[in-house]
Amino acid sequence: MSDTVARPIGVAVLGMGNVGAEVVRILTDSDGDIRERVGAPVVLRGVAVRDASVPREGVDPALLTSDPSALVAREDVDIVVELIGGVELPRTLILAALEAGKSVITANKALMAVHAGELSEAAARNRVDLYFEAAVAGAIPVIRPLTQSLAGDSVNRVAGIVNGTTNYILSEMAETGAVYSEVLAEAGRLGYAEADPTADVEGYDAAAKAAILASIAFHSRVTADDVYREGITSITPADLEAAAKFDCTIKLLAICERLTEDDGRERISARVYPALIPLEHPLATVNGAFNAVVVESENAGRLMFYGQGAGGAPTAAAVMGDLVMAARNRVYGGRGPLESTYASLPVAPIDDVQTRYYVSMRVADRPGVLEQVAGEFASQGVSIAAVRQEGAGEDARLIVVTHRASDRAQSETVAALEEMDSVIKVSSVLRLEGTNE
Amino acid sequence: MSDTVARPIGVAVLGMGNVGAEVVRILTDSDGDIRERVGAPVVLRGVAVRDASVPREGVDPALLTSDPSALVAREDVDIVVELIGGVELPRTLILAALEAGKSVITANKALMAVHAGELSEAAARNRVDLYFEAAVAGAIPVIRPLTQSLAGDSVNRVAGIVNGTTNYILSEMAETGAVYSEVLAEAGRLGYAEADPTADVEGYDAAAKAAILASIAFHSRVTADDVYREGITSITPADLEAAAKFDCTIKLLAICERLTEDDGRERISARVYPALIPLEHPLATVNGAFNAVVVESENAGRLMFYGQGAGGAPTAAAVMGDLVMAARNRVYGGRGPLESTYASLPVAPIDDVQTRYYVSMRVADRPGVLEQVAGEFASQGVSIAAVRQEGAGEDARLIVVTHRASDRAQSETVAALEEMDSVIKVSSVLRLEGTNE
Repeated sequence: MSDTVARPIGVAVLGMGNVGAEVVRILTDSDGDIRERVGAPVVLRGVAVRDASVPREGVDPALLTSDPSALVAREDVDIVVELIGGVELPRTLILAALEAGKSVITANKALMAVHAGELSEAAARNRVDLYFEAAVAGAIPVIRPLTQSLAGDSVNRVAGIVNGTTNYILSEMAETGAVYSEVLAEAGRLGYAEADPTADVEGYDAAAKAAILASIAFHSRVTADDVYREGITSITPADLEAAAKFDCTIKLLAICERLTEDDGRERISARVYPALIPLEHPLATVNGAFNAVVVESENAGRLMFYGQGAGGAPTAAAVMGDLVMAARNRVYGGRGPLESTYASLPVAPIDDVQTRYYVSMRVADRPGVLEQVAGEFASQGVSIAAVRQEGAGEDARLIVVTHRASDRAQSETVAALEEMDSVIKVSSVLRLEGTNE
Repeated sequence: MSDTVARPIGVAVLGMGNVGAEVVRILTDSDGDIRERVGAPVVLRGVAVRDASVPREGVDPALLTSDPSALVAREDVDIVVELIGGVELPRTLILAALEAGKSVITANKALMAVHAGELSEAAARNRVDLYFEAAVAGAIPVIRPLTQSLAGDSVNRVAGIVNGTTNYILSEMAETGAVYSEVLAEAGRLGYAEADPTADVEGYDAAAKAAILASIAFHSRVTADDVYREGITSITPADLEAAAKFDCTIKLLAICERLTEDDGRERISARVYPALIPLEHPLATVNGAFNAVVVESENAGRLMFYGQGAGGAPTAAAVMGDLVMAARNRVYGGRGPLESTYASLPVAPIDDVQTRYYVSMRVADRPGVLEQVAGEFASQGVSIAAVRQEGAGEDARLIVVTHRASDRAQSETVAALEEMDSVIKVSSVLRLEGTNE
């Protein structure tokens, strides 16, 4: 396929953090493999960094520049790899690249979760590629399977563990019994958590990925703001212990679901929250910094994709896959799929989603309390699946797991419980996912 | 993206078995989704069946034909979906389609494992697509992740459970303790095994898939004949019990591995055999008719893909993904990757592969036997990892698990054991995979 001599494909890399450094290393070290796979030489034209005067190991200083706009604009740059992070600067640079007829690869989930529409339209208008496999679940192929392998199928649900930091924290808490703040500090020391962990632990990172996954899976435009979101900061060792008693563990899940009303009308639910899942669920055994995504579709059934969701080399592998395909398209013609929003399904509020609840509460230690609590659930039309009574006196606790009902009914029940005399405190409310009840 | 009116893409389906019937159903029922995703209407032009006079539920009789060649040759057919099975007839039809400038989708692993080279060359010459995602692991995206998502990475190993029939049989044997022949008969009754199960139980089906995976993973041409192959017909309940005592289970594995010599020379190993794997290995929990493929690559690390490996609808989902992408390429231009053989790595014989052995033997019940057996392993340079002595008298048994050594040394040791006076019978020899020792 590479029997004709094609002109070289020039690449600009913007940003040289963990991922950028790996991409530069792979491009520099490749001894012909990439040329063979693309059908033309792939040449690194430059690397935009904050301070180009600082030497970088293994990188020709002449390649470094602190002017990303000028690098993007170079005539001999065909493909721009954006690994800067943030939103406004990369948005501007990527739009400039696309409008100049260059293909773009990005790993920027925050950007794609907000501006996918604008960027995809620019790519379509200029007939170039915009790829972002690395934006969701690092090395794990998820975007390409959803957009291409399942292009002839109808996806009903995507549920995944897509944030390694929170998965590490929850795995460690489950294993060691340590409290959240301790494990977070340890994660920081090990490099699994950022100095400011907000984006991870409050679920913003996972919500951005959920928006991207929901957009692709359901051929609709879903942005980060459309995603219902709760973080993991209030999860306690007691929650994990209680989960274990119900043969469950707790994971931060990103869930994208097609909701079908009785009249056939379809909506999307996109949500991120820590949830109990049964120990036998395929996502329950995904521990540490690993990611996994389960896709359920009409004909393919249930598929699972598992691997490293973060880290320099794994994320760079996803970037490189996109880069080779984009380069190949510049040699052979053609383009990969861009944003597809023809279905235009609306996003349903969390209130309308059918969920199951796990509610843990401190209660007065006197006869009749269980009856009163059960009555409150019943009055809201929420059916109870299991109850545990624990402790006594000051420490008397009631744990209730419900059957499926609207999240509105579930949350209204919890609000009502908080008003009850016999309920001292609702100490924990989590959802239960991954069951068929 | 579908704002211009593109001419319809005509599709011919050859064969209407389980998969063909599902593809026809999906194409017939699609209410616009496929048109939106392709950017043009996709129209079923005809279905080639053995006897076109037999009516098929839900299929317009006018679409049926018993002349596949004439259907392939039709001017209004742009894409041919080959689901006939066999080798010679589909080969001829596919070549005719490619030479006539039509893109081809096939689920035919036996064909691709032998004729991928010839067919890919025809596709390249005629600048059309030849896709075969459904040929390996049914609904699970494996070909596209390997050829595209990992296009910028270097794959070191692919190991998978890629045959549902044998996985069902081994799972059932492990769970129920039943003998092979009983479970095979049951699998036949349930539709999990063919009337003639040879291709499955003797590992030919898995070997064809291993050839395809090895070719793609290592950018070399590997055919079914290059794959070392053993089936599962001699696995006994005693083997599964013994495996359990070593915290292992037994799975039929397809393994494709990059072997690197001390001098940097690289070769490929492609092999299929039943092997012990540790219970904590990700493939150990893949039960029943499910398939899973683990890919280990330089930068991405370990990825796992899991799902339904067979069945009409799941396999049709893979075919439809290919079909939508091929149709899209006809609208927008461009082609997917074809065979890539630039690395041209040679295939190493099984003798040269480093393996671990599990050897179960009936031995004389007298002092010194363990010493003699251990001495035989030592003299061949094979180090023993674990030994179990079981039973007594007539039933005295010795089970040995070795460390890694060349398969030649391992098999020569077994041959030597068979000659020893104190070894009455070597009753079982299996390999052990999925460990780092």
